Parts: sequence; structure tokens; C-alpha cells
Amino acid sequence: MRKLMECVPNFSEGRDESIVESIIDEARKVEGITILDYSYDKDHNRTVLTMIGSPEEVKNASINCAKKAAELIDMSKHEGAHPRMGATDVIPFTPVSNVTIDECVEVAKEVGAEMGSWGIPIYLYEDAATSPKRKNLAKIRKGQYEGFFEKIKKEEWKPDFGPQEMNVKSGGTVVGARVPLVAFNINLDTPDVKIADKIAKTVRHIGGGLRFVKGIGLKLEERNQTQVSMNLVNFEKTAVYQAFEMVKMEAKRYGVNVVGSEVIGTVPMKSLLDAAEYYLQIEDFSIEQILEKKLLDEQ
Amino acid sequence: MRKLMECVPNFSEGRDESIVESIIDEARKVEGITILDYSYDKDHNRTVLTMIGSPEEVKNASINCAKKAAELIDMSKHEGAHPRMGATDVIPFTPVSNVTIDECVEVAKEVGAEMGSWGIPIYLYEDAATSPKRKNLAKIRKGQYEGFFEKIKKEEWKPDFGPQEMNVKSGGTVVGARVPLVAFNINLDTPDVKIADKIAKTVRHIGGGLRFVKGIGLKLEERNQTQVSMNLVNFEKTAVYQAFEMVKMEAKRYGVNVVGSEVIGTVPMKSLLDAAEYYLQIEDFSIEQILEKKLLDEQ
Repeated sequence: MRKLMECVPNFSEGRDESIVESIIDEARKVEGITILDYSYDKDHNRTVLTMIGSPEEVKNASINCAKKAAELIDMSKHEGAHPRMGATDVIPFTPVSNVTIDECVEVAKEVGAEMGSWGIPIYLYEDAATSPKRKNLAKIRKGQYEGFFEKIKKEEWKPDFGPQEMNVKSGGTVVGARVPLVAFNINLDTPDVKIADKIAKTVRHIGGGLRFVKGIGLKLEERNQTQVSMNLVNFEKTAVYQAFEMVKMEAKRYGVNVVGSEVIGTVPMKSLLDAAEYYLQIEDFSIEQILEKKLLDEQ
Repeated sequence: MRKLMECVPNFSEGRDESIVESIIDEARKVEGITILDYSYDKDHNRTVLTMIGSPEEVKNASINCAKKAAELIDMSKHEGAHPRMGATDVIPFTPVSNVTIDECVEVAKEVGAEMGSWGIPIYLYEDAATSPKRKNLAKIRKGQYEGFFEKIKKEEWKPDFGPQEMNVKSGGTVVGARVPLVAFNINLDTPDVKIADKIAKTVRHIGGGLRFVKGIGLKLEERNQTQVSMNLVNFEKTAVYQAFEMVKMEAKRYGVNVVGSEVIGTVPMKSLLDAAEYYLQIEDFSIEQILEKKLLDEQ
């Protein structure tokens, strides 16, 4: 059974193509790594790389890329629209197949320890976080590169690895593990965004709804409709079909109908197979029955 | 975009393990081939190999395996419970990803031409068939190895490739292309098999139902229930969810409920993702949004 993890490191360079390519090259050189995508843009001055491989391969590739980023990027000169605190800004590891979230945490810690030994302050986040306060990326990164020279001195912001002192050239890096996120929107036949918002508030976790749903109501101007826009942050525990059925159920009280839904970006097949299994009432289904799953495992 | 085809050749040897392994070894030697499964048994005296690779890879692997089978198997001494007519009995090619059924037909013809040049009579079947009469494997193979010495002399059974004369040692081989088959059963809360059978007859193609559904009613003794047992022979045109909904609809007239379903063996992910797409009403969904699909394509 081939073990596969996804790693999506973000680097603070999106203008100098030769630097971007040099960083990506470090991933390309690691045998077994599949680069699914990488994109960079001048406004954000940032590159996002999506790669997949065995735990060992993504560990090595992320370390090599981060090393190259530390060599080629100078944060003291960095400007960009996207919040950032380091040359390698954030490195999340996500399970793809035959690995657990705990194995992702393990890899995140190894990568963090290695980068810390280069003199870069490292913060572990999400499932790798060492305290609840450090789970959220935005909270860790608040103040950004410029603010961290002071922030790091506070005892509560002592890094998990590396010195308790900002690295002028490389900044600091947030490394962690998280389960894959599914961005799932449900379109309603009402133009009244208040209704979409009320439904979102009922279905989402903070409103008393489903444990792993975040959501808001949005207006779809062109369609004269509205949308419940959701992030399912743990689709293995709160399934896509559960969020769908709950939105449908809540919509009824307003006499509103679901007219369609949208899956945004790339999602693991299991997130949608769960829905097939539910609606088709399949008994004793195993993901091992999927040809493509077998194929990936055998390689 | 990596092109992938599945090939499931059947060989008339299931007793002598060293012969079986020698044949499978020929597939193992072809770089890029993934062997998903192979099994053989003494009663049938037959081996079924399931492998996946690029069109070129499965072509080469199937030719090499067939050559080894022609060398090591002597059909004049073969006995077994399963109908068979040759050392390599049947070779079907099936699209997996980024290939069309026409490309499978092309590969089948190339393999058939090659084997024909060895003096083995070859019949093309299913989507590769050169006449409607030759679509069905069972009809071609009728009479089996022993009967073919006479059958082959008839003008209507002139082979598509190779001599119009039976090969004593290797027999004849049926080569073809077909879309993947999904075995899908739906369980009903009635012990009356007549009801399951009536539903099957309404839903299946020959009864006026769905174009690519074959089906029968079965008794599930242990559960005291019944089942509509179906083969969906083209799930891209007649989807799993369509068969499911139609059985449910027909069951209603008897006051019978669907209590569950079963997906038998390995199926392509698209066969079930179609159901997720339907029931979740996903707009503008593309299979390219599935992580595992991307991963296979990039490799």
C-alpha cells in the first residue's frame, strides 16, 4: 500500500521567475514527487506549490525547497499583498492515502526541527500545534514579518523549534498538519441573502450546527440567487452529504429550494464517494473497490 | 495526461504454478505495467490476470504473456470446468483514463494481428467485433477448443486474423475491447422473488428498460429478502444512480422498499462519482477536480 501525503508550501517570492523555478526545481529533483500544481503572482509576491509523494519524499522535498528559499529570498526586502512572515511562509502536510494525520504531524515536526537548526524560528500549527492558541495560522502570523521582531520576544510566542529571535533574512515559518478541506457551496432559489446567511449560521459549527462546517451566506448577483458558501474542514467526520441535506432541510422553513451546488478546486475522491455510498445505500462498501485507488496503492 | 488501459487476459492454465508464474512474469517485465491482481484455480484450470498500463505497455505485456502461454500450454491436453478455446483464451482491453474505447479497439486489433502471425486463429469481439454476430464472447467460443476444429471451417467463422485452421497446441484466441462493467445489486425488503424478478424485467434493456442494464431477480435466503442483481454494461451511458432510482420507482408499485445495495468487485471511480454529482446536484463538476485523478494523470 503506497503511502501518500500532500504538501503545499508557500514561498514569499512571486515576481522573480528564476528564483521561483530554482525553488520548485528542488522538489522536482526528489524522486517520487509528483508536482500537481504551482502558481505565483506579482501582487501577492508569493508562490504556492502543491506536491504529493511518500512521507519521506515530501519531507525531503519540503526541506530542500525551504533551504533554497532561505538562500534566495531576502525577507527584509519583501513586499506583497498577502500576509506573510517568512521566506518559506507556511508548510502544511495533508494525508492523501494510507497515512494518518498523526503521520503528517510527525513529518511536520521533523521538518520544523530541521529548519529550526538553520536558525529559523518555527511554529507548529493545526493538528501539529503544541497549544490550542497555535492552531490557527492567521493568529500565529498576526503582525507578520515586520511585527515578529517584537512578538517573538514574548514568552507565549517562543517558537516550537529554532531560536527565540527573528531571522532577518528568512523570517519565521509555520509548519503543520491538517486534514484536507472541501470547499462546497449550495445555491438557493432566493435572492434574499439574509435567508442564505440564516441557513449558514444554523448549519455551521459556531451556530450550533455541524462540527466541521464553516459557512456564510453570499449573494450571487448575476444569477439573482444566493449561496451558502461552506468550508468542510474534516469531511471524514462531517460529510459533504450531511452538510447538503442539512442546508436543504433548513431552506424548507423559508420556502426556499436548493437549485445546485459547487465543489471548488481539487478534492479527495472519498469526499464525494461518501455521498454515492449514502444515497445509493451501498452496503459494506470499501474504497479499495475503486480501481484508481488500487492503482495508486500498487505503484 | 497519462493514458491508462486495463487488460484482463485469461490463460488456460491454473494447476501448474510454475507455468502460471512464467506467464505473469512476462507482464512484470514490461516497465510501467501495474499488476492489480491475478488468480488461478485448479477446477477451472485457468488464470485471470488484471493489469493496467499505457496502451503501448498493455499491448506489449499482453503479446509477451500470450507468446509465453503459446510456448508453455498444450491445449490438446487441457481439461477444466470453464469454457475455453485457447491457451490464451480471451484478451479484453478496457479504457481506464484518458483513452477512448476506439483506442482500445486499435490495441486489440494490433494484438490480434500479431498473434495471428504466429498461426493462431483470432476472433475480435465486443467493441472490436467485425460483425454483430461476433460481439458476444460466449457465442464465439461455443463448441470450445474441441469443437473449433470443425467450426473454423465454416465461412462465417473465418478468423479475423491468422489461418482458417485450428492451432492444435494453442487453440484460438478471442481479443477485443469493452467498456468497464459495473456489477450492482439492489436489495428489497420482500421475500418474494417473483417481485424482484418482475422489477428486474422492467428495468433491464430487453424488457423495455434502460439501454445498458442486464438484470435478474434473486432470493437472498439468509436475509429472507430478495435482490435485483444487475450488470451495468456501459455506466457512462446508463448510470448507476439511474438504475438505482428506476428499481426504487418500480418497487413502489408492489409496496416494496429498497433496503440497500451492493457494488461487487472493483469499479472505476467515475461510476460512483456520477451518483454523488447527481444527488448533490453539483454544477459544472469535472473529474479533473478529483485529487487521485490528477495524481494518476501526472505520473
